[in-house]
Amino acid sequence: MRKIQNKNPLQLLKAHHKVALVTHVHPDGDAYGSLLGLLHLLKSKVQQVEAFAEEDQRSKFNFLPGFGEIRNVSGLVAGEFDYCIALDCGSAQRAYGIESFLKLGSQITIVNVDHHISNTKFAHVNVVDVESSSTAELVACLSNEMGWELGEDIATCLLTGIVMDTGHYLYENTTDKTHEIVANLLRVGADQGLIRYNLYQNRPVQNVRFMAHLVDHMELLSKGRAVLMSVPDESMRQFGVAYEDLDEMIAYARDIAGVELAVILKELNKTETKVSFRSKCWLDVNELASQLGGGGHQRAAGAVIEDSLQEARKILIPMMETLFAEVTHENGSV
Amino acid sequence: MRKIQNKNPLQLLKAHHKVALVTHVHPDGDAYGSLLGLLHLLKSKVQQVEAFAEEDQRSKFNFLPGFGEIRNVSGLVAGEFDYCIALDCGSAQRAYGIESFLKLGSQITIVNVDHHISNTKFAHVNVVDVESSSTAELVACLSNEMGWELGEDIATCLLTGIVMDTGHYLYENTTDKTHEIVANLLRVGADQGLIRYNLYQNRPVQNVRFMAHLVDHMELLSKGRAVLMSVPDESMRQFGVAYEDLDEMIAYARDIAGVELAVILKELNKTETKVSFRSKCWLDVNELASQLGGGGHQRAAGAVIEDSLQEARKILIPMMETLFAEVTHENGSV
Ligand SMILES: [Mn+2]
Ligand SMILES: [Mn+2]
Repeated sequence: MRKIQNKNPLQLLKAHHKVALVTHVHPDGDAYGSLLGLLHLLKSKVQQVEAFAEEDQRSKFNFLPGFGEIRNVSGLVAGEFDYCIALDCGSAQRAYGIESFLKLGSQITIVNVDHHISNTKFAHVNVVDVESSSTAELVACLSNEMGWELGEDIATCLLTGIVMDTGHYLYENTTDKTHEIVANLLRVGADQGLIRYNLYQNRPVQNVRFMAHLVDHMELLSKGRAVLMSVPDESMRQFGVAYEDLDEMIAYARDIAGVELAVILKELNKTETKVSFRSKCWLDVNELASQLGGGGHQRAAGAVIEDSLQEARKILIPMMETLFAEVTHENGSV
Repeated sequence: MRKIQNKNPLQLLKAHHKVALVTHVHPDGDAYGSLLGLLHLLKSKVQQVEAFAEEDQRSKFNFLPGFGEIRNVSGLVAGEFDYCIALDCGSAQRAYGIESFLKLGSQITIVNVDHHISNTKFAHVNVVDVESSSTAELVACLSNEMGWELGEDIATCLLTGIVMDTGHYLYENTTDKTHEIVANLLRVGADQGLIRYNLYQNRPVQNVRFMAHLVDHMELLSKGRAVLMSVPDESMRQFGVAYEDLDEMIAYARDIAGVELAVILKELNKTETKVSFRSKCWLDVNELASQLGGGGHQRAAGAVIEDSLQEARKILIPMMETLFAEVTHENGSV
């Protein structure tokens, strides 16, 4: 197990401490998984521990053990705590509910446990490990260093964070250490069946139908090396799918044989269109998004075009065709 | 690492031995992965090692290191070998090319390395470990017991076998030991990117279009707890998809929220229809398939109905509706 830093922040905690846990806005699986995993872990270690997050009972992560114990920030009294630990937050702006802790200044210790390369190290104690696939993996690692025993609920929460941030072990951030930690989480009783059922075998039928609709209408460009999907706001309302559901649809388009670039144009309103890019092997879509005033990562990026869906399409199609016109080899070389 | 049996069959092999490796008909990822993994492993251990399998250069597993070294059974002279190792074969009938070795009687030692619960223990030495997710996992385990070092190519082949037999770690056969072995395969250099690209990001566009076609025409029955897809032979030819591609499509249908049973009816010819069943949580489809003269496992089974596609549909729909009419709770209780 690799050493994260000289001082493990969990060493700071004493039995009489009161600890508040927070995570980022619009919590994803890693946010909830690391938040709840650490909540369960600390219950037997400190006098009081509370987890705060946005209220969202309809979240697909509401199956996680202890989900109902998450408290809304409205009930938060910062002065009651000795420590505030922010999980999976790249910056203080992203950390939901952290303002009232920041106002306390040195009366409280703020700890930042995260794995984003862009982390702004906003806390008193910053444990940012960009080699961890997920904050949940990092929490498991820190807990192992302490020699703490993990129970089943803790393991289920942390495993959820890991599988969501690694695309169920498919993304490049999955390492031998990730699998080693997962082996340990399964050994102590993480509930694989519960996670499988809720996250991979529970896709709403309208999403399945909408996926088929998008495939029926997708445009293959540049000899099949690029694919474009246009999504009028009306069609999403008609099928009853949510904005975040588009994520798996663009991934599905990217994974077509021969496709290097997948683009989804989503109508926000009559004068704004969100464009999302995904690339497979070599294309830097961060660069592409930057040309449109947006940004992101090499393989996933986005921008907002200040124009209608139809006009955005007219901008994107020539852009994509020019891009691939220069490329003669599959690996991207000219 | 668990102990497989008292004697590891790899201990039997000496430097002067000549070893033939065989696997099952219609090789899947575990068949090719374990075959090629062991081929590469034994090259530095014995005088001669050859892998035999059906010829299929268009296999989606042709990216595996050493795929081109696989020899066709037509060139096989059994008497030249001391050992024949059958990989991933539940019975001698399934082991492609084993007949000529069996005819040699006690002149040769036949070794059976497999993980199927139905294994008939047809060989002189049988190493059947039903707790292994895959034969590739078992080969990795046996090799670790020997203290042998794994190279990158060996690791890539064995990892492919594991991910294909576990549905990329989603199936119930995935254990803490599986993840432990995978951690080790990654540590010695298994090429995750190569596997990801070839097996998960390379879906033919016609399969994507056919999936959308099936979704557009699927029938939801029993208040959405069952889904039926009917596939005329003509539609598969029209889209240009292969029989084995239906596997991922039935899995996609099963994974719809609320669905417990997915059924695909595939027209074989005017008087024969193949029916495939998949269940999610509680329904025993082996039992269901048995009623139609077929069989399989609890969550995946099939049968052939001696009738046309339309007639088969008329048999299946009432069968499915009766099945769920008695069920009032989502978990299958009445
Ligand atoms: Mn994360
Ligand atoms: Mn197998």
